[in-house]
Amino acid sequence: MKNVVTIGGGTGSFTLLSGLKKYPINLSAIVSMADDGGSTGVLLDELGVLPPGDVRQCLVALSESTEMMRKIMDYRFENGGLKGYNLGNLFLSALEKIQGSFSAGVMEAVEILNVKGDVIPITNEDMRLVIELNNGKILNGEKVLDYNEDIHKIGLKKVYLKKSVKACQEAIERIKKADFIVIGPGDHFGSIIPIFLVKGVSEAIKRSKAKVIYNCNLTNKKGQTIGYDLDRYVDEINNFIGKNRIDFVTFNNTLPKAELVRKYEKLEGKNSLITINNENKKRNFRIIRADLVQKIKVNISKKDLYSRKHSFIRHDSAKLSKILMMILELGEYESIIKEII
Amino acid sequence: MKNVVTIGGGTGSFTLLSGLKKYPINLSAIVSMADDGGSTGVLLDELGVLPPGDVRQCLVALSESTEMMRKIMDYRFENGGLKGYNLGNLFLSALEKIQGSFSAGVMEAVEILNVKGDVIPITNEDMRLVIELNNGKILNGEKVLDYNEDIHKIGLKKVYLKKSVKACQEAIERIKKADFIVIGPGDHFGSIIPIFLVKGVSEAIKRSKAKVIYNCNLTNKKGQTIGYDLDRYVDEINNFIGKNRIDFVTFNNTLPKAELVRKYEKLEGKNSLITINNENKKRNFRIIRADLVQKIKVNISKKDLYSRKHSFIRHDSAKLSKILMMILELGEYESIIKEII
Repeated sequence: MKNVVTIGGGTGSFTLLSGLKKYPINLSAIVSMADDGGSTGVLLDELGVLPPGDVRQCLVALSESTEMMRKIMDYRFENGGLKGYNLGNLFLSALEKIQGSFSAGVMEAVEILNVKGDVIPITNEDMRLVIELNNGKILNGEKVLDYNEDIHKIGLKKVYLKKSVKACQEAIERIKKADFIVIGPGDHFGSIIPIFLVKGVSEAIKRSKAKVIYNCNLTNKKGQTIGYDLDRYVDEINNFIGKNRIDFVTFNNTLPKAELVRKYEKLEGKNSLITINNENKKRNFRIIRADLVQKIKVNISKKDLYSRKHSFIRHDSAKLSKILMMILELGEYESIIKEII
Repeated sequence: MKNVVTIGGGTGSFTLLSGLKKYPINLSAIVSMADDGGSTGVLLDELGVLPPGDVRQCLVALSESTEMMRKIMDYRFENGGLKGYNLGNLFLSALEKIQGSFSAGVMEAVEILNVKGDVIPITNEDMRLVIELNNGKILNGEKVLDYNEDIHKIGLKKVYLKKSVKACQEAIERIKKADFIVIGPGDHFGSIIPIFLVKGVSEAIKRSKAKVIYNCNLTNKKGQTIGYDLDRYVDEINNFIGKNRIDFVTFNNTLPKAELVRKYEKLEGKNSLITINNENKKRNFRIIRADLVQKIKVNISKKDLYSRKHSFIRHDSAKLSKILMMILELGEYESIIKEII
């Protein structure tokens, strides 16, 4: 079976893994540890544990157990001193304490939860994101990327880590042995770039013989990536992992419902759907265009845990994984793919 | 396989079930819900859930999973707002909320934790214990039985429930179908008697065709059962479940280390070891005497979760279950037992 390593975090990884787990591949999900919002952030501060939120979502996505396991891992207490705490996060934090490191705790969780594949936090160290704006102003913490007036007005210049952290040995091993590395979808500055900032990751991808697939996001984010086209995303990632390192890019070619687009543009600004410019430009990666967008109702229930306000337009788990499996099957025969697409 | 129902709670049930789970029997552990101390009590007040502590101990005792599962279920947070909360209790409380009733939540836990046998809370209602002292003074909550100056000085007269509660249908069903009902060991007024106060339980035991075995405790408790001999315990329980209802009593005939006895008497008063008086009295139950006491070091580590200050002299899990299995095997041939013992 092919070794497939995914790189990301948050809702994007959840979508990706929920689909990929149905195929016969060796899956290793490498997960960003930059998340510091919500109850995850509270755990970080109160217990001195690493933020379990993104890892938890990946574990749930890969779980082969019943729907019950999802309900349990996602359960959030509603009263008293426990209000807002998520049971799955508490479970992972306890495992970290018991096992001595977050990655060892997650390995145990994979065992207990009967998870398909492995979930590997990118680092066992405390990974704090710094956001620098165009006017030099500094903001702290990944959570400000969710919504911040300054970012909207002034614009993000770059992100970096407060303190250099080293990648888990296990994450590096998986990258080395990978046949395919699948990057994204996911928040560009919140989930994707932070992983490449971790010491050892970019170097390992550069040296790996794996084909690299990038799942381009569907939309840009106000003040962060507005105006980015497909090439800009690819270039920024290649800046970390090596010139021309990305081999394939999946790109959605179907327009979401007009109603959804309008709703989204209200939040993120005009022209927030990502486009391809200079259609005929010669590129060193192949673009696989397909209908990748999820058909959902516009009025999303508040109870849907994975529908945040920025996720109205998102990838369809089944469509995305099907296209990826096609690339995996045919990846080594680029000429054939050229004929097909 | 024989249907064996155990009745109790706390450390006594833990000891009993840890041993019995190794034998090929259908085990149903019916558990008192009167516990309202520690983090269990906090959950009761803050989340409005039922107290999960005793059930958790039984689940851990019956777990066939690795030592890891025990560590996880028993893990207690040490910092911040979560300090003192037990992960297993939080897990059970979340399951109660998800499943809609405590017993349904516990059924799910049995599934997830790969538990041998079933664990059944005696009631799904809020079961609050009231303690009446010899001078008429009223104390509230099972937790006061752990240590209370008034109880020591004035003495306990009786316990009752603040509000009548009904037994779980499932608990009644198991009692009906039981071949053997095993009562205790366990705190007499804190775990054993409260179960018989729940509506439907005594009636079901009266009508059940099961043989009833009572595991007599090893020691009396200051202000509560001091001066009780074996017959007094049996009589008090038979008062609930029917005259002469108990068929067998297991009784420890080995003196614990003198050092341990001294230590214990400091806590509970002189002559706290339970004895049999009127040796030759004619009884309607058979006493099975055996070495049932656990050989433990006197200096118990603080980290041993199941060694509380009152548990220095306690049953040995393997010895107790072996004797019980002998009774189960031979229970229907009382004459043979008579020959053996």
